[in-house]
Amino acid sequence: MANVAIIGATGAVGRQLLEVLEEREFAVKELRLFASERSVGEFIDFNDTSYPVQQLDDDSFDGVDVAMFCAPESVSVEYCPRAAAIGVKCIDTSSAWRMDADVPLVVPEVNGDALELLKNKRIVASPSSLALMMVLPLKVLHGCSPLQRVVVSTYQSVSGHGLKAVDELRVQSGELLNGRPAKQSMFPHQIGFNCLPQIGPAADQDYTAEEIAAGNELRKILGLEKLGVSVTAVQVPVFYGDSVSMNIQLADAVAVDHIREALASSAGMELIDDLSAHDYPLPVDAAGQDEIFVGRIRQDLSCPEAVNLWACADNLRNGAAINVVQIAELIVAQ
Amino acid sequence: MANVAIIGATGAVGRQLLEVLEEREFAVKELRLFASERSVGEFIDFNDTSYPVQQLDDDSFDGVDVAMFCAPESVSVEYCPRAAAIGVKCIDTSSAWRMDADVPLVVPEVNGDALELLKNKRIVASPSSLALMMVLPLKVLHGCSPLQRVVVSTYQSVSGHGLKAVDELRVQSGELLNGRPAKQSMFPHQIGFNCLPQIGPAADQDYTAEEIAAGNELRKILGLEKLGVSVTAVQVPVFYGDSVSMNIQLADAVAVDHIREALASSAGMELIDDLSAHDYPLPVDAAGQDEIFVGRIRQDLSCPEAVNLWACADNLRNGAAINVVQIAELIVAQ
Repeated sequence: MANVAIIGATGAVGRQLLEVLEEREFAVKELRLFASERSVGEFIDFNDTSYPVQQLDDDSFDGVDVAMFCAPESVSVEYCPRAAAIGVKCIDTSSAWRMDADVPLVVPEVNGDALELLKNKRIVASPSSLALMMVLPLKVLHGCSPLQRVVVSTYQSVSGHGLKAVDELRVQSGELLNGRPAKQSMFPHQIGFNCLPQIGPAADQDYTAEEIAAGNELRKILGLEKLGVSVTAVQVPVFYGDSVSMNIQLADAVAVDHIREALASSAGMELIDDLSAHDYPLPVDAAGQDEIFVGRIRQDLSCPEAVNLWACADNLRNGAAINVVQIAELIVAQ
Repeated sequence: MANVAIIGATGAVGRQLLEVLEEREFAVKELRLFASERSVGEFIDFNDTSYPVQQLDDDSFDGVDVAMFCAPESVSVEYCPRAAAIGVKCIDTSSAWRMDADVPLVVPEVNGDALELLKNKRIVASPSSLALMMVLPLKVLHGCSPLQRVVVSTYQSVSGHGLKAVDELRVQSGELLNGRPAKQSMFPHQIGFNCLPQIGPAADQDYTAEEIAAGNELRKILGLEKLGVSVTAVQVPVFYGDSVSMNIQLADAVAVDHIREALASSAGMELIDDLSAHDYPLPVDAAGQDEIFVGRIRQDLSCPEAVNLWACADNLRNGAAINVVQIAELIVAQ
């Protein structure tokens, strides 16, 4: 039994996290829920008990075993070290610690052994939802033949930016359908019935931070320093569920059926791949599910060593909550 | 002055075609508008005259100089040869004739000289909207360094499937926003707030017909028999305006600024490329425009000879109507 703190409990990821902790019957002794000032006073139900939402302060982590951070990066930067200093094991879903050399970036199915590094800073990072949904299929393909290069275009839902972004798509869509102009605040342009080829701020070499980060995270999790990754991250008008179109170049030509079998028999993934029957992963079907759904697997006709693959996953559940709880299960069992 | 027939005048492409003929002051002597039986009796305005919509029959093409086909493939298969047999020059927007070795597949800015082939069958084909929006930027990049391979993921709007598909997205979106189930008929799955990784029927090697056709058309228009093209075609919940995320491998590493200059100075294209200022092409901005908008140009960090590029275009205007009228202008001038 563990004393658990959740920081950012009222946000989109925090709510999913509480659901997953309940579903997986995580052995919670004491639960403390934290959020920003405007949520203080709210109550959240967990396992038939109602918990008050509190504001973080210096005493918040006393006696806590595991703290799960699903708040903005600035909160993780400030509070993870404070909690870790008094012995709390911190699992962080923000980008604050992912590339820190002393912090393990963990996907239990892929590199659970990296958790050993937790002893350095008592902080473990969970990858971005984008890296999370790519890394499992890539790990499987790497088992078929060594990965050389990955070219990815994404179709990311608005919920990755939180509940306000979900509201913005909903409200904008309704306004646009009624011939009224779309007001925006969360996105730099209209998102209703549009696609935005930018997620996150501009970074180096004309890439966005999201695009650069996904490659760095994949290399770190897979332990493949030289893996080539080229990402175009695109926001699409979908509420929940992210999709990626991946072109994956391996060292050798591998039969598509062999890849299908390898993916179908791997934990955490489900193969849906029958184009003639219109069967392939869809973001709306992935929403609410734990697995990564893969399909549209086919040889790249322009390169015998490459395959194309389409994958969908729930960006909040699969892309954060499930991984955090799986990490917590490993930590508690240590 | 030419006698012009438009077949499929009441459809999404047909309406755009009439708009573009007016705008470009195409010298029409006599205009005949054809559509399927259920549209007969309608009237359509063109240059301040009202024209009746008629049904095709054996005498429809008597005295016609140029016939523009924007009807289903089956209509083109049947009526293009009949019209051509009595001397009519046919421009076809369907997929019926695109890969026929005796029929030129023409984009005037790229391979206008291929129109010489028109003498073989008196039929000229206009490419799919997808090939059309890719071929101009590819032609420019080929001028910087020979094209080797193109990996493309698409974000295609529903209007490519006609006005019924536009209605389906509109109605479904409204129903879903009101918590009611989405009824579908034009698409195999819900399209509202979803992405479908299938456009067109299943074809060879687990690709869709749309994906295979785009590569074949690009090779034919560019005259590059060995160009590698790998396409993942995805339907997104956008009304008008298609987008593509292209990874383009050249023979040599070319500076991104050089590519930007080459694209910016080419006819038919507009460069919008300032990520820090949130400036890049958007499908909703491309809708109603004639140009192909290109941006997000950056070197592929995983391959020095490759660049990434995002492009948007109006799939009905740029993707069909403009090209048909440009072809017609060349034919009439011959």
